[in-house]
Amino acid sequence: MIPQEIMDTLKNSKSIIILPHISADGDALGSSLALALALQQENKDIKLYIEEEFPQMYSFLPGKELVSIYSDDNTNDQRVFNGETVIALDTGDIGRLGKRAKIFNNAIHKINIDHHPTNTYFAEMNYICENASATGEIIFQLIKAMDIKFDVDIALCLYTAILTDTGGFKYSNTTSLTHLIVSQLVSYGIDISAVSFRIFDSISENKLKLIGSAINTIELFENGKIALITITKKMIADSGAIEEETEGIVDYARNISGVEVAAFVKEKFDNEVKVSLRSNSYIDVSQIVNKYSGGGHKRAAGCTLNTSLLETKKIILNDLIKAVKSRM
Amino acid sequence: MIPQEIMDTLKNSKSIIILPHISADGDALGSSLALALALQQENKDIKLYIEEEFPQMYSFLPGKELVSIYSDDNTNDQRVFNGETVIALDTGDIGRLGKRAKIFNNAIHKINIDHHPTNTYFAEMNYICENASATGEIIFQLIKAMDIKFDVDIALCLYTAILTDTGGFKYSNTTSLTHLIVSQLVSYGIDISAVSFRIFDSISENKLKLIGSAINTIELFENGKIALITITKKMIADSGAIEEETEGIVDYARNISGVEVAAFVKEKFDNEVKVSLRSNSYIDVSQIVNKYSGGGHKRAAGCTLNTSLLETKKIILNDLIKAVKSRM
Repeated sequence: MIPQEIMDTLKNSKSIIILPHISADGDALGSSLALALALQQENKDIKLYIEEEFPQMYSFLPGKELVSIYSDDNTNDQRVFNGETVIALDTGDIGRLGKRAKIFNNAIHKINIDHHPTNTYFAEMNYICENASATGEIIFQLIKAMDIKFDVDIALCLYTAILTDTGGFKYSNTTSLTHLIVSQLVSYGIDISAVSFRIFDSISENKLKLIGSAINTIELFENGKIALITITKKMIADSGAIEEETEGIVDYARNISGVEVAAFVKEKFDNEVKVSLRSNSYIDVSQIVNKYSGGGHKRAAGCTLNTSLLETKKIILNDLIKAVKSRM
Repeated sequence: MIPQEIMDTLKNSKSIIILPHISADGDALGSSLALALALQQENKDIKLYIEEEFPQMYSFLPGKELVSIYSDDNTNDQRVFNGETVIALDTGDIGRLGKRAKIFNNAIHKINIDHHPTNTYFAEMNYICENASATGEIIFQLIKAMDIKFDVDIALCLYTAILTDTGGFKYSNTTSLTHLIVSQLVSYGIDISAVSFRIFDSISENKLKLIGSAINTIELFENGKIALITITKKMIADSGAIEEETEGIVDYARNISGVEVAAFVKEKFDNEVKVSLRSNSYIDVSQIVNKYSGGGHKRAAGCTLNTSLLETKKIILNDLIKAVKSRM
């Protein structure tokens, strides 16, 4: 249940600023844009500040005319210095607002709506719903509870929010309520196949080339329980792919039938090698990266080693073999 | 609305045979197993006959003890010759029952439940719901209308049916009702991330190798509107992949940003080359394959040419260039 205090504050505010987290993803952007569009219908003066460029991937989302990239220097929006109501969305802690923490701190009324279990309750009014697959689910309920009319634009933003944070309704955070909400969103006439294609299937020629050459490097060990996939500086340069396009490539190794743990070893410089580890069911990869001051979770973790590519592979493979053998 | 006649027939039958279509896919198997499990709860004598081996990919589905592979020679099931009630599921026409058409024809009561718009209404009692994303949606409604209790096994079968026929809720056949039904299925406690991984992400080492080498063959033409991806006999042999593992590889070419039409050219023998075409928005690929006695739809079609690999590529590329240019 959305706290009445939050709904009352939004109803009674003439001016509202919405802040998604830095490096805004589909949920942060989709939730923020949906709320912006909904509150605009209520004749509020709405502004949505983001930290970086609007991601190309989400350029199809409606409501972008309400969005500005925040900069300390060039703002002449008085609300930044003396805002009425500011709402942080999908933001686990105030640090995730980046430079825009200033806007948040200057506000009269501060609201924090999120679904991360690690949320620090940094506002006056906090509504954290850990069971929600996405902040988009909470915004759906907020808009409904405030009795604001849905339209296809709001529905598209919320659909995108939920679609991305559930990995296309595939992750275990997807619940019965998630599908119930999506059922209502879809009824507003979203072109779901176009959205899915854009988010999950569309790929640049360069990234595809890099994937092709990365697949060719896959090595299996310990009866196929361990998979290693390697990317060198040269492979990235030859493909023409950009740095961020190496994301997700580790999954090609993890998804091989029989693999328990996959390592993606990426040469950044001659003696700087990034390692991403993924496990499927029992190996706690966060324990492995801890030795190298890395971080992450049981099933997904990473670290950087200041050794050569070859040496890094040896070290990590050794760790993975030990981890696999300890379970035999 | 499920016809009362069908429900009455099922209620009044002691023995019921269920038949999914040949080369049974997730929807055919999932719907059939769900119905089998539900009717078994009603103390019916249930048998599910399939044409081929149970697909490894779906081995996690419950209810397999009710399944037999049909063979003309070895059956001693009297119902095959003189069945009470037989129900064909997800089967567009009687030809899609293969050898098991005999079981269908021998039955006293014949039922046909399907969602293919091309269904030929080949039974006495037909219920064809073209708006259903999957036959699984119809079986959900049938079980509900017959007031049979759902459990996690039935839910898993129907979830798998709908998941596969909607490509993971991504295809345009996914409706508001689809998500509403899935919302109810998920509430029975399905491990949705495990099912999705198994169906969409898990891949054999050999198939992955083949994908890697196939990606390396991609060629773009006409400012990136046309993509060609090639697989030779040697590539298949070198990878160790089996024939059916070439399926879906065409999508790597189609998904490249900017590509309108993709051709997957697969050398089967020296002068037998299979061509699969996919388009994204405007080229009608069925028109192209028609020239070579192929078949399919506007966005997905295929044909076989009895020319060399090189010659086939030339011919098809020429057709694709013409098709793209005619739209400029």
